[in-house]
Amino acid sequence: MVSSPAQPNPTSARAARFELLTLGDELLLGLTANTHLGFIGGELARRGVRLAHQATLTDGADDIAAQLRVSWARADVVLVTGGLGPTCDDRTREAAAAALGEELVFDAAIERAIAERFARFGRPMTPNNRQQAMKFARGEVLPNPNGTAPGLWLARDGKVLALLPGPPSELRPMFADQVAPRLARLGLLAEHELWAQFRTAGIGESALETKLQPLFAPHGAALEVAFCAHDGFVDVRLASSDGQLTLACLESLATRCAALLGEDFLCHGRDSLAEVCASLLREREKKVAIAEAATGGLLAAAFAGLCGACKFFAGGVVCCLNEAKQELLGLPECLLLQHGAVSEECAVAMATAVAEKLGADYGLAVSGGAGPVGTVHPFTPAAPGGNPVGAMYLALHTPHGTWAKKVCWPGGSTTLKTRAVNAALDWLRRELLRAPVSAPVAGERVAAG
Amino acid sequence: MVSSPAQPNPTSARAARFELLTLGDELLLGLTANTHLGFIGGELARRGVRLAHQATLTDGADDIAAQLRVSWARADVVLVTGGLGPTCDDRTREAAAAALGEELVFDAAIERAIAERFARFGRPMTPNNRQQAMKFARGEVLPNPNGTAPGLWLARDGKVLALLPGPPSELRPMFADQVAPRLARLGLLAEHELWAQFRTAGIGESALETKLQPLFAPHGAALEVAFCAHDGFVDVRLASSDGQLTLACLESLATRCAALLGEDFLCHGRDSLAEVCASLLREREKKVAIAEAATGGLLAAAFAGLCGACKFFAGGVVCCLNEAKQELLGLPECLLLQHGAVSEECAVAMATAVAEKLGADYGLAVSGGAGPVGTVHPFTPAAPGGNPVGAMYLALHTPHGTWAKKVCWPGGSTTLKTRAVNAALDWLRRELLRAPVSAPVAGERVAAG
Repeated sequence: MVSSPAQPNPTSARAARFELLTLGDELLLGLTANTHLGFIGGELARRGVRLAHQATLTDGADDIAAQLRVSWARADVVLVTGGLGPTCDDRTREAAAAALGEELVFDAAIERAIAERFARFGRPMTPNNRQQAMKFARGEVLPNPNGTAPGLWLARDGKVLALLPGPPSELRPMFADQVAPRLARLGLLAEHELWAQFRTAGIGESALETKLQPLFAPHGAALEVAFCAHDGFVDVRLASSDGQLTLACLESLATRCAALLGEDFLCHGRDSLAEVCASLLREREKKVAIAEAATGGLLAAAFAGLCGACKFFAGGVVCCLNEAKQELLGLPECLLLQHGAVSEECAVAMATAVAEKLGADYGLAVSGGAGPVGTVHPFTPAAPGGNPVGAMYLALHTPHGTWAKKVCWPGGSTTLKTRAVNAALDWLRRELLRAPVSAPVAGERVAAG
Repeated sequence: MVSSPAQPNPTSARAARFELLTLGDELLLGLTANTHLGFIGGELARRGVRLAHQATLTDGADDIAAQLRVSWARADVVLVTGGLGPTCDDRTREAAAAALGEELVFDAAIERAIAERFARFGRPMTPNNRQQAMKFARGEVLPNPNGTAPGLWLARDGKVLALLPGPPSELRPMFADQVAPRLARLGLLAEHELWAQFRTAGIGESALETKLQPLFAPHGAALEVAFCAHDGFVDVRLASSDGQLTLACLESLATRCAALLGEDFLCHGRDSLAEVCASLLREREKKVAIAEAATGGLLAAAFAGLCGACKFFAGGVVCCLNEAKQELLGLPECLLLQHGAVSEECAVAMATAVAEKLGADYGLAVSGGAGPVGTVHPFTPAAPGGNPVGAMYLALHTPHGTWAKKVCWPGGSTTLKTRAVNAALDWLRRELLRAPVSAPVAGERVAAG
């Protein structure tokens, strides 16, 4: 898989400069999310190419031509998305031809393909579709099985220009099936992933860097390290864009990081906290149940959305009101009155009750209150003693006991909920790591899928 | 609110050139979605500014400085996101200072704020955090209540440079609370939205355009109309960028669209379906309870996340397994065995049971099963008769009766869940529209907040 004649020399592959131009007023106006950067950037990166630059331009022909001249002068590969459609604001072909001094010619085969597509869907083909049948005289056509506008490919002066359609459902298959293989054949892209990534939880970005520095330092500038913090976990990526460190070396380094981090190491790759918990639960043949107030269903959704959830997720209760806590979980009214809904006692009772009620081995609970910033939490009455806004109690019920802890973060309501979900999942994960794995039954595969 | 001395002339506001530079290898590598373009582009657009250019750069100081020189030369406002953190790949401050010939100075107040933040969360402050305490000697500091790195603001030569933190939870409030007001004071941004937007549900994009065309046609080219379809609702935006139609005229047109659309009109602005339902429930002094399988907590979260949810949201149950449906809702086993969990009968029983159990006036239920595409739904056993993947039953319990309907859409698991949540909410909304509004009690404000 690694060494084929088409496999590029890593050094030459990495030396090529790639730029991505995403066109469209709707992107600049914030009406459509620009998902092309994430998709194309990710596809290139995993094959050893770091996109050097990405720009979003208006649909104006002058803007497109000006940026194309700049990008064509400094890059080896220029990928352009959008502006290939039939309407008057689709000017990519003409602008590119003008900027690069290329001639556009009519291609009867493209027009036939467009006409056939219209016929297949029983719609009339309006005349403005004809502009989609133009191609570079010296270039190639990238057929579009998922839309009308084909892509265009131009290889000149040792450089490549690819014009790709804007809709993701058309662009993604065209990139994967036609563009990436062509780039690989030209030695501009590798055919397998070339970096090592792992995920950590429960340790901040700066403390993480400090802790891992002794492992990174010996590699000096040959090793590139990037950290990316999320709400409750941090991604670490190890790369060596000059090829001095092999992939095997990077992966072995990631494994040593894992050993040093201990329980703060979440996984190699990008599995979510819920996925990691699910794997651990499956391995141990245990189930978890959820009772939540402040997170309002998000913790349950983290488990319910996973494949095969019935194996490890027993169910959940969203009980912001005391009445719901009493009715669904059987919590005693006196407990709620004495300690309040935002209390250690209430969280412990919620975790225990939901686990017992649903026959689960583990119970995770989140009490109130992630209200809008600056207001008293609206749906969980404060405890008599009072709790600051954003304070919540998490509780974990296990076969060996039940514990609660208070958590408090700054930030808006959405952030608070994400952090609470991730903190609850991470707590469960750490507890599960200490629980023994079930002995595999003969002939049965126990590991997580 | 509209006319203040700081209110920019729309023409001059539009003449200012805005550029956005989003920094970070993680964006170019496709590891993190670039949501800054959508957020900032949208915020600017609604206030009369079309972002002229956006570029994503590597974390390399040379790249940052080179692009900053280009953007600073041609733009009036340059907004930069990312690269302000404590680690070695955070080089925005230094690169910007180098590119613009500005001096960076240490600011003790920033360091104190960072140290206090670490102390508040009981974490040690590592020395690498100190680089976040540097600011432009001639610039201002934008305090960051949601993270360690403050933003930096530099106004020079009639131009503005703003460096903003990368995490959206830090950037968004900083932009809204500090950057936009400063830009408005400088006359670079309007203080209110310059377009009229409304939201519809239950009608497709093309049918909507056809229906509204008679209202739009008289305005000819002076009126710009844009449609944006989501999973279950469509946004319509009315603008007049040449200023021929006033905002009042656009708003009056939106009101006429509302009258024509009847129940398919959701709201002016961008309220979510859950927010609209919440307003209707409050006005009628009614409560809703949720029982869900396929949506796994997302429907409950849509209500629980709203302000004052205890007034209208009685609670929810996530019951993917039959055991949970029996234990939490008291559904009879024979019903589940005879009709299956994915059935009209089961959905009706879920909606009724959860409403009765929690004392709610309305009960909304979603039965299985939005599994991964191409697989049998993992957590909801199929009915004996069999249901296609992606088929779900929604049920609505009301004071006047309980109904169920089958829904089935194409698309991946996430899309399916969003559509199911939105379809359930829209059903509740239409039912509530027909229910009488409670008479307001003297001195009490009944309308939604």
